[in-house]
Amino acid sequence: MSDCIFCRIIQKTASAHIVYQDEDVTAFHDIHPAAPTHILVVPNRHIASIGQVTPQDAALLGKLLVVARQVAEQAGVGNHFRLVVNNGRQAGQSVFHLHIHVLGGRSFTWPPG
Amino acid sequence: MSDCIFCRIIQKTASAHIVYQDEDVTAFHDIHPAAPTHILVVPNRHIASIGQVTPQDAALLGKLLVVARQVAEQAGVGNHFRLVVNNGRQAGQSVFHLHIHVLGGRSFTWPPG
Repeated sequence: MSDCIFCRIIQKTASAHIVYQDEDVTAFHDIHPAAPTHILVVPNRHIASIGQVTPQDAALLGKLLVVARQVAEQAGVGNHFRLVVNNGRQAGQSVFHLHIHVLGGRSFTWPPG
Repeated sequence: MSDCIFCRIIQKTASAHIVYQDEDVTAFHDIHPAAPTHILVVPNRHIASIGQVTPQDAALLGKLLVVARQVAEQAGVGNHFRLVVNNGRQAGQSVFHLHIHVLGGRSFTWPPG
């Protein structure tokens, strides 16, 4: 989708610090980091939100979590990190292309926002 | 694992308010809710943390996310919810059996803890 910033990052028509990319998944630094390490892991296929996934998406979703773990390791925060997925504006979703936040490099409090 | 509280919940030798269970995944209410809706989605197979998953676990991990979405819908918070996975004590992980927190029924702030 040409008006989706994450689709443009995936297609390299918008700039980002990409740390991982394959045929299904792209990972890049969040431009408004909420932790010393803050990477977004997204499906290359445009899915608006986790609230719209179906059982047919399970393999892709699983790969997102595997890549989330891998980029945490590569960033040196593999022992302590938090993954967050927001669904809907009230939950804090601001870009409507499904993404997993990978946050690390500091301690985290509870509740999670 | 007999000393794992989540394994005991899955096997019904410890009590919990289970809202979903199949051959791979179990979902139940968190006993210390951090939101009006707070459900944990866990693999029936004991995996200590997201930091220990491998690419071979992708199908199971994807199913966890699909079930997370389903239980959010069933709980009536499908439009607005937050998913959180903690890896390691510094990130807030207190039970070392992989679990996805499904939080809903209120607004959420940023950063997420």
